[in-house]
Amino acid sequence: MILISAPDKKGLIYHISSVLYELGLNIERNDEYVDKENERFFMRTHTYGEANDEILQKRLKSILPRQSTLKIQDVGKKKILILCTKENHCVGDLLLRHDSGELNAQIEAIISNYDVLEPLAMKFGRPFFHISAEGLSRKAHEDKLLECISSFNHSYIVLAKYMRILTNEFVSHFENRIINIHHSFLPAFIGANPYKQAHQRGVKLIGATAHFVNENLDEGPIITQDVIHINHSYSWQDMQKAGRDIEKIVLSRALNLALEDRIFVYGNKTIVF
Amino acid sequence: MILISAPDKKGLIYHISSVLYELGLNIERNDEYVDKENERFFMRTHTYGEANDEILQKRLKSILPRQSTLKIQDVGKKKILILCTKENHCVGDLLLRHDSGELNAQIEAIISNYDVLEPLAMKFGRPFFHISAEGLSRKAHEDKLLECISSFNHSYIVLAKYMRILTNEFVSHFENRIINIHHSFLPAFIGANPYKQAHQRGVKLIGATAHFVNENLDEGPIITQDVIHINHSYSWQDMQKAGRDIEKIVLSRALNLALEDRIFVYGNKTIVF
Amino acid sequence: MILISAPDKKGLIYHISSVLYELGLNIERNDEYVDKENERFFMRTHTYGEANDEILQKRLKSILPRQSTLKIQDVGKKKILILCTKENHCVGDLLLRHDSGELNAQIEAIISNYDVLEPLAMKFGRPFFHISAEGLSRKAHEDKLLECISSFNHSYIVLAKYMRILTNEFVSHFENRIINIHHSFLPAFIGANPYKQAHQRGVKLIGATAHFVNENLDEGPIITQDVIHINHSYSWQDMQKAGRDIEKIVLSRALNLALEDRIFVYGNKTIVF
Amino acid sequence: MILISAPDKKGLIYHISSVLYELGLNIERNDEYVDKENERFFMRTHTYGEANDEILQKRLKSILPRQSTLKIQDVGKKKILILCTKENHCVGDLLLRHDSGELNAQIEAIISNYDVLEPLAMKFGRPFFHISAEGLSRKAHEDKLLECISSFNHSYIVLAKYMRILTNEFVSHFENRIINIHHSFLPAFIGANPYKQAHQRGVKLIGATAHFVNENLDEGPIITQDVIHINHSYSWQDMQKAGRDIEKIVLSRALNLALEDRIFVYGNKTIVF
Repeated sequence: MILISAPDKKGLIYHISSVLYELGLNIERNDEYVDKENERFFMRTHTYGEANDEILQKRLKSILPRQSTLKIQDVGKKKILILCTKENHCVGDLLLRHDSGELNAQIEAIISNYDVLEPLAMKFGRPFFHISAEGLSRKAHEDKLLECISSFNHSYIVLAKYMRILTNEFVSHFENRIINIHHSFLPAFIGANPYKQAHQRGVKLIGATAHFVNENLDEGPIITQDVIHINHSYSWQDMQKAGRDIEKIVLSRALNLALEDRIFVYGNKTIVF
Repeated sequence: MILISAPDKKGLIYHISSVLYELGLNIERNDEYVDKENERFFMRTHTYGEANDEILQKRLKSILPRQSTLKIQDVGKKKILILCTKENHCVGDLLLRHDSGELNAQIEAIISNYDVLEPLAMKFGRPFFHISAEGLSRKAHEDKLLECISSFNHSYIVLAKYMRILTNEFVSHFENRIINIHHSFLPAFIGANPYKQAHQRGVKLIGATAHFVNENLDEGPIITQDVIHINHSYSWQDMQKAGRDIEKIVLSRALNLALEDRIFVYGNKTIVF
Repeated sequence: MILISAPDKKGLIYHISSVLYELGLNIERNDEYVDKENERFFMRTHTYGEANDEILQKRLKSILPRQSTLKIQDVGKKKILILCTKENHCVGDLLLRHDSGELNAQIEAIISNYDVLEPLAMKFGRPFFHISAEGLSRKAHEDKLLECISSFNHSYIVLAKYMRILTNEFVSHFENRIINIHHSFLPAFIGANPYKQAHQRGVKLIGATAHFVNENLDEGPIITQDVIHINHSYSWQDMQKAGRDIEKIVLSRALNLALEDRIFVYGNKTIVF
Repeated sequence: MILISAPDKKGLIYHISSVLYELGLNIERNDEYVDKENERFFMRTHTYGEANDEILQKRLKSILPRQSTLKIQDVGKKKILILCTKENHCVGDLLLRHDSGELNAQIEAIISNYDVLEPLAMKFGRPFFHISAEGLSRKAHEDKLLECISSFNHSYIVLAKYMRILTNEFVSHFENRIINIHHSFLPAFIGANPYKQAHQRGVKLIGATAHFVNENLDEGPIITQDVIHINHSYSWQDMQKAGRDIEKIVLSRALNLALEDRIFVYGNKTIVF
């Protein structure tokens, strides 16, 4: 998979496709988008055929403008880590998909600030690390998290209802590699207890938003989001229960998009092919 | 149509149905809801049979607890006024429904701060009043509006993309009788230019919310709301264009609910039967 | 929970609420519907207070017209059986909800014509019965199923992607007590391989339908259904993968409605409160 | 706008982009899709820059495989004709969009087998032709329709709830140029009275489908479709009323896609960019 983000310029597609053609690569699927506001070109190309990755990289770099980014990705299984707290629906959903082979990823480990979900991880034979925050400063807790995380290879960290706020320092280690599920249709109901907020406001729909985490709480680039209709008879607990269904579906959709290298992040937005 | 809102109390349904039974009224449709948090009972009953409204009112009042509200409504066509500015989609949609007889209301007049939509009102033979705000203080403009409005009977005022903020003083004349369509899924993107705000935030869905107007901008009781999915390729103008479709549909749904006396307002929320 | 289905008659609500009032029962939630076409009245009443069930039953029967049905249900946990074949997403989803206590039911056993899902059942400590159909006549296989099923108490049988057709004879033992998930928006794509059918037809949305099973394949009373949008780039396998998400959500919604006694079946339709 | 449908072949994108590059055309937006099942390549390219259309056509043809189709389209306003019967919601919606300039098309004429909608057409100053079918054979009626239609230039014929079946002979004159709105989520409820069929089946959602008309009733290539949720309390008339909202929205979405040259038809399916 070839992923290009570049300043827009005349002839880009021609030059890129020339390189591929000359190296004998055939295009199986090609997506392009030009962000006119920012004059930025995005291209995701799935090729088949054999070519030396180093040569491909070198040739493409030679024709791309400065300030381009180029990634040549394997399409195989990626490795992921899951962080969670006490609720089982998002973690469980990912484990089920992992178990059936539907998830195109290897779950390397599940890490939690509580031990509630350890039995669930055990059922599915996935390593579980309980890193309690009790009695620790935020920094001390995150240092322990980082130590655990750094012992694994991983393309993405999935916050599957991880209910602690991460510091900017922590987040800065994993730019656009932490995927969070927030239980509201952002930017509504940022922060704690979105269902209570939603109940108090008397909304007629509730939502879930999967986004990359950046330094501002619940303000990172949105990957995907969805809603369901509710009515006056829903208590906030009913909303929470109903909301779990979209939380897990939206999180898994976002993760799949990431695993298939379909997401570009530019500024605070995503381009999703 | 009998509409009751009362402090919850044992035996309410029994006592109410006794009155109806004794007066020979049969229940065609009955909806009830108990808001446990506020210990409040809501009931909407559609009866048939003949009974003197005054007697019915007196008997029901005698069995309802203090601090109840009771309304006995005719189910016939209500009268409405429409306020708008320049965009034709919401007004036009209501006029089409009016024209085909689908709308169970009589559009008494269309009032606008611009004259752009006068030809549209004329096409459908509805009185149009152009009340320009130019050179007027907010108060002076609203006084003119009020004068015009007060010359008509009307159950509801529909803000069909009326793009001026109304003062608390104005709103206080029409408690829970002004229906607005806001072009976002509230409470996200309160205020001006929600589509620009949505574009900047990079959301993956856009919405529309119909609500009663109260003293706080875009914070009145929500009647109904809906969303559509969008993607990175939408400029804010594309969002605006796509959004018009849900704006008009959501507004007309909310108006229909009001016209059929299906909405109770309690605190800052609605109960919708 | 009091569930009444009766020929519509003047004063029904009055007479029913009189009985409840006299026995000291307070109504916590009450839903009513009159099917005018069939002149049939449906009522679901959640009461609190203490009353002898036998007396309540007797009194209510005395005021209900002939050809009424009356059920007084405990609101506690019901027992269910799950039938499945090879796919893990619906069974797994129910097991996760069972495990977290979200599912208001006790999964008594999981029965399958294959042994593929035995490890999954084991993970969650639920009894698994492998009843292979190999080398057996349909009747012989169903006799074995019936024997297994009859060894358990159960309110509902959930077909969580059970991929064999059940005979009328089998179905007749469990009227309106077998819930099936069909992987299309019925009545489109009845029968085998709905996703292949959908792909061939070039639809732009795919769906899932939960319904009670009756003697006609995929034609039983629909409980709930939902769809998701797709596009030309979806192969039928992509549809199948995306469809799993709505299959499991729709099945679990339908099961919850059944467990909460919110569904009346009348003719070939459901009334869902 | 360059529209190419071709047998899939190595180097297609390279060869096409070479031609564009050499002629000094810059690509503003490019969409591609390979239908692997049919080994067919589809490409829609929006270019800017000046180039002689004839030369462009010639050069592109020289590098495209046999059995390709190539269209070079102006992006300006297209002309359309509307056929309708008695219901005003679809026609009216299109007229409103036409009136505000939102519709990127010129409505040349409105043709109907009844005169009910003549006043509506008049309001918006669009020519109206009443071609009654009374006392005419199907062929004689269609001959009159054809005569009227052939007096106008038009890219598309929009069946905005035209309630007569068109013969194969008629349809054959306008291959993939007649857009119909069918009031169900096809392929469910083909033919007459879909809402009555839906009511009888007890579905929990109703839909609308926009499709190109071909020789088989309601079986042409689907462009777009959508649904809304309903419940047991909807009579078929309620369904019809609620359904009108999606009918008009879905029809207008499909028409916009056609007007923007975003639809390829291949076999009985559409590729929609």
